[in-house]
Amino acid sequence: MNRITIANKNPSLKVPALVLEGVRQLALRDIELPLGVGHGQVKIAIHTVGICGSDVHYYTHGKIGPFVVHEPMVLGHEAAGTIVEVGAGVTHLHAGDRVCMEPGIPDPFSRAARLGIYNVDPSVRFWATPPVHGCLTPHVVHPAQYTYRLPDNVSFAEGAMVEPLAVGLQAVEKAAIMAGDTGVVIGAGPIGLMTALAALAGGCSRVVVADLQTGKLDVAAKFDGLIPVNVRETPLKAVIQELTGGWGADVVFEASGSVKAYEGLGDLLRPRGKAILIGMPVEPVAFDVSALMTKELRLETVFRYAHQYDRAMTMLGAGQINLNPLVSETFAFKDSVRAFERAAEGRPQDVKLQIRVAG
Amino acid sequence: MNRITIANKNPSLKVPALVLEGVRQLALRDIELPLGVGHGQVKIAIHTVGICGSDVHYYTHGKIGPFVVHEPMVLGHEAAGTIVEVGAGVTHLHAGDRVCMEPGIPDPFSRAARLGIYNVDPSVRFWATPPVHGCLTPHVVHPAQYTYRLPDNVSFAEGAMVEPLAVGLQAVEKAAIMAGDTGVVIGAGPIGLMTALAALAGGCSRVVVADLQTGKLDVAAKFDGLIPVNVRETPLKAVIQELTGGWGADVVFEASGSVKAYEGLGDLLRPRGKAILIGMPVEPVAFDVSALMTKELRLETVFRYAHQYDRAMTMLGAGQINLNPLVSETFAFKDSVRAFERAAEGRPQDVKLQIRVAG
Amino acid sequence: MNRITIANKNPSLKVPALVLEGVRQLALRDIELPLGVGHGQVKIAIHTVGICGSDVHYYTHGKIGPFVVHEPMVLGHEAAGTIVEVGAGVTHLHAGDRVCMEPGIPDPFSRAARLGIYNVDPSVRFWATPPVHGCLTPHVVHPAQYTYRLPDNVSFAEGAMVEPLAVGLQAVEKAAIMAGDTGVVIGAGPIGLMTALAALAGGCSRVVVADLQTGKLDVAAKFDGLIPVNVRETPLKAVIQELTGGWGADVVFEASGSVKAYEGLGDLLRPRGKAILIGMPVEPVAFDVSALMTKELRLETVFRYAHQYDRAMTMLGAGQINLNPLVSETFAFKDSVRAFERAAEGRPQDVKLQIRVAG
Amino acid sequence: MNRITIANKNPSLKVPALVLEGVRQLALRDIELPLGVGHGQVKIAIHTVGICGSDVHYYTHGKIGPFVVHEPMVLGHEAAGTIVEVGAGVTHLHAGDRVCMEPGIPDPFSRAARLGIYNVDPSVRFWATPPVHGCLTPHVVHPAQYTYRLPDNVSFAEGAMVEPLAVGLQAVEKAAIMAGDTGVVIGAGPIGLMTALAALAGGCSRVVVADLQTGKLDVAAKFDGLIPVNVRETPLKAVIQELTGGWGADVVFEASGSVKAYEGLGDLLRPRGKAILIGMPVEPVAFDVSALMTKELRLETVFRYAHQYDRAMTMLGAGQINLNPLVSETFAFKDSVRAFERAAEGRPQDVKLQIRVAG
Repeated sequence: MNRITIANKNPSLKVPALVLEGVRQLALRDIELPLGVGHGQVKIAIHTVGICGSDVHYYTHGKIGPFVVHEPMVLGHEAAGTIVEVGAGVTHLHAGDRVCMEPGIPDPFSRAARLGIYNVDPSVRFWATPPVHGCLTPHVVHPAQYTYRLPDNVSFAEGAMVEPLAVGLQAVEKAAIMAGDTGVVIGAGPIGLMTALAALAGGCSRVVVADLQTGKLDVAAKFDGLIPVNVRETPLKAVIQELTGGWGADVVFEASGSVKAYEGLGDLLRPRGKAILIGMPVEPVAFDVSALMTKELRLETVFRYAHQYDRAMTMLGAGQINLNPLVSETFAFKDSVRAFERAAEGRPQDVKLQIRVAG
Repeated sequence: MNRITIANKNPSLKVPALVLEGVRQLALRDIELPLGVGHGQVKIAIHTVGICGSDVHYYTHGKIGPFVVHEPMVLGHEAAGTIVEVGAGVTHLHAGDRVCMEPGIPDPFSRAARLGIYNVDPSVRFWATPPVHGCLTPHVVHPAQYTYRLPDNVSFAEGAMVEPLAVGLQAVEKAAIMAGDTGVVIGAGPIGLMTALAALAGGCSRVVVADLQTGKLDVAAKFDGLIPVNVRETPLKAVIQELTGGWGADVVFEASGSVKAYEGLGDLLRPRGKAILIGMPVEPVAFDVSALMTKELRLETVFRYAHQYDRAMTMLGAGQINLNPLVSETFAFKDSVRAFERAAEGRPQDVKLQIRVAG
Repeated sequence: MNRITIANKNPSLKVPALVLEGVRQLALRDIELPLGVGHGQVKIAIHTVGICGSDVHYYTHGKIGPFVVHEPMVLGHEAAGTIVEVGAGVTHLHAGDRVCMEPGIPDPFSRAARLGIYNVDPSVRFWATPPVHGCLTPHVVHPAQYTYRLPDNVSFAEGAMVEPLAVGLQAVEKAAIMAGDTGVVIGAGPIGLMTALAALAGGCSRVVVADLQTGKLDVAAKFDGLIPVNVRETPLKAVIQELTGGWGADVVFEASGSVKAYEGLGDLLRPRGKAILIGMPVEPVAFDVSALMTKELRLETVFRYAHQYDRAMTMLGAGQINLNPLVSETFAFKDSVRAFERAAEGRPQDVKLQIRVAG
Repeated sequence: MNRITIANKNPSLKVPALVLEGVRQLALRDIELPLGVGHGQVKIAIHTVGICGSDVHYYTHGKIGPFVVHEPMVLGHEAAGTIVEVGAGVTHLHAGDRVCMEPGIPDPFSRAARLGIYNVDPSVRFWATPPVHGCLTPHVVHPAQYTYRLPDNVSFAEGAMVEPLAVGLQAVEKAAIMAGDTGVVIGAGPIGLMTALAALAGGCSRVVVADLQTGKLDVAAKFDGLIPVNVRETPLKAVIQELTGGWGADVVFEASGSVKAYEGLGDLLRPRGKAILIGMPVEPVAFDVSALMTKELRLETVFRYAHQYDRAMTMLGAGQINLNPLVSETFAFKDSVRAFERAAEGRPQDVKLQIRVAG
């Protein structure tokens, strides 16, 4: 667990947490966690934690690809809270500050981190990725450098959504959007919607959001600039041809992770357009490379994010983006297991479920 | 005149126009203009024309740099209207279409145009730049390729502001803005305000607009995301330091053309920040190169625009940008001379003055 | 045929040419070709023509994907020669100039061409792509704008290799190489070797060239900076790990078109590395998208080239690149059919076969 | 001094060093330096040190801009040597390794360093920049992370030139050179020549090197691809127009720091060309901004370098660049003062003077 690593003589305390014991074995129970505040660290009273698809996948499958839950592990990595203690050497944060936290901590001396691309540092330690504990517990200790002060106008609920928003911002950075671009997002889950909002904020004039589920598309419809398309009813290509006078979209964000979404991907794009791959398909995907070539398309991939939290703070502070409509329901900490059961249902109209840890 | 060049057996007609005869010698009178519609051309009934600073400068000085008005010249280059006739070979436009026009026509076979950077083709022929006539006259003939259909929700007044907006969009393209950036625009004239709006549309979370004149800043204050700063009262650097926690702005757009604005330019920017130079200073500017270097700043320059009209159409059509608050007053065609007199006054609260040519 | 299109009242002449009649049906015989020189055109006496894999594929299969040879078609599109006649309006070329020609002619008014990306204009007309005739005939008429003067130190043989070199340069442009990069080229055919040389010229310190055939790798070994690797004997990944201290290559150019080459592509690259896809696989390729993602890799595709001939002229003129070692054998025009038979054999040591059309 | 900072309980030793006491007061004498090897550090026996213009300027003026030598300071920052001791936690270096060292050490937790742009971190501590001691002494202790193993084929003399080469590589990175570009370097001093060689390595087909001094241009003439121009005899613009058919250079590197070099800078460049400013002029420079604008030129500035040493190691190891012809003379350590006197003479034919510290 990264908190142990960073401050390894850390006195552990028995504290309540949402602990995953095995497949579908989840309990709110006491567990020993190290909570001493070392140099450069802060201690945060967790207020709100969002449930991410990866949390749910660990809950239902006990693993994600090579990451297997062998030992009991605290879930949760989308968090906001209030600083309660500040370690030595921390100057930009103070007790009482409302903050959100970047859940992945790279080795600052790795080659990737030095180049400024710390998200692709293989030694990143990430909350709720085995064997690192997550944040569904009343307090965490975290490096101050990866803890960000929330602007006054930003709620804890929004603060706890900065993590998925950062994925969307990373995708938008890769897209190198120009003002007036037309974007497409495939998949209207939380990451897809965050990406769509980030794409609007990043310069797109309009973003087509494609999904199979009316419930999620109804959420998209709440935002100016988002154009929901139910691909069960309407062929996506036709919508884009119509919108762009036959030229094609400037950028397509693949946020569904569905192998099917890759079929005809090139048909949606304009010559020299870009496809940004965010959703991770569980199996290999068949690409029609020659179709990509005749338009000289570019494919970019996204892995978490680097340097996006500062941007997110500025954007939310300035009101450039409004995440509140994405919260579908908020559960009390004591109902955490129920919250995960609900998340595992995958209700069509659910976008983001959150747990309020603070009383 | 470009219309003569392009269709040189063109029958000329005596038509009314706003004609500049010499310094401060401006008349609404008949002049012979070629109005035959050749291959690839369209004839447009002009509806609205904006008055640009360059029009005013020709009016008050008879020249801009090397461009001297030797012969009577029709003024005006910011125009929108309705197509009344379509030449052979034109397929994407039809009579009745509401349109705006790009006033500069490059040589499509020039090296610059082939590379896609037609604005820096030295052979561009530009409306109301001697010896080319402008568009303050009831009809013009124009290449269909540089004529753009207005979306239904875009007024003629807005259509006639696409030209200065395109300058702002060109500046924003050069700035390579990332979502969440903090921008600064120096100079709250029409180009400055258009650039500020383009910067917001292009991804800036907030744009500080600096000027000496309260009137113009009051217009800036009407837009969410623009932060007006009267630099007579408040030091610009202090505002930016405060906003950015001492880091500096990501991009500064210099839109005043004032030599004074260059003083301390580097102090406003973050390390590796960018200054985009739009306003053309009439004399050489003293740069503190070593101050630029210690932050490794980049300077980009802007000359008109290339490929921005299509973008502007998408943006205005999608409601991403709203130019209407920039129109200060609209004059009838018969009052064109009075409109120019007013423009030459340079009233502090005047942003964009327009002339309605159509009845 | 593009020459007919451009000058359609063109008087046709019966001239000898290498004509493909059907699968494996190739004859050096007379055919009617339009050879009048229109405005903006030049007439070129062909000196040398290279045989491209696509020519061979039309010869052996009668089609490439959707392009089917229905009518007799002259083959050949890699050519150099001497100007013998200059049309009206041509100023930068003169009779006697030694030149090479870009075989694809876009519509200059297409959206893609105006943006400067003419290679992705769907209306490009390309030599020896049905129904457009190629250049294996003593004279062709061509737009002067796509005809380039050879520097004095560049042979006709090299001039006829500018076409495949341009593909390599396009790939290198997409790779955005930085000085000191380590590159990999998969496939040591003509395009692979051209790309490898272009990558060295474009800044790579060293380029690993991988193939299964010793003959082609022996050609690679003639060039400083190219590191041949026979992947039958040595695992490519191990070579790159060794060379880069475990970090990975900065860029991989896929020039084999083999589906097998895509396996483990991501393993060769460093975090945020780039794969440039040049070889066109005939069937869909299975991509391990999640492997691309964890390193945030970028994929670029290449389709022919735009704006590379001018660069190639400068590079060859300056001696930055030496293509002569790539010519495996030169055939007389009368032996053209034999040259194609040899090309169809696919001898391992053959890189580029050429036909000398001029006496 | 950074070595004190990093390991502040470091036992100091009295060792010989080249110590600057004041203006023109330079002595090879004993001084106390901290030489204990802390965690993550290595101790290096210095072999060769190059003399940089900044060393000479401190010698002749006692300061550079705001950096004033108040206390005795060891000079020298361009060094190569052999590791003699390795601190705890260092795994990639071993005693006996031949190495060169990056003289500037940033704060790894600064915002700039985290973004990967550590050269613009204001807290960088740089050898021989007051109050930090330099490396003209038999041993130094340095962070292993900024110590680079020399490839076997690279001499100590070349290793000691990696520092100025890195400046050239930084300039070339900013230039975003494409294969086949034409470059210009103004100023044939060490930085100018390193930049010219880096520009060739980075893709330029040819680089015009302009200076007033025949001696330095004679050194340029030794390298294929460099075109020396004595601007006393030949107008630079004319040379470039001739070379580029009137189009202009793709990139101009200003490496002279002379205010005069800025006159007519825009005339040398093609539309959308780039000027890279490396030489730091001591006073403000008058820019003709409107001349920059009509070509939409970009200006980039360079401040030291970031992430260039790794690249330099690869380039030198691969033989992509050969620095040996740049060494004009090598002095023994005991003759260090004489070496600085010679450097202060500024002989026209002197490019790089070096001091061999090792016996």
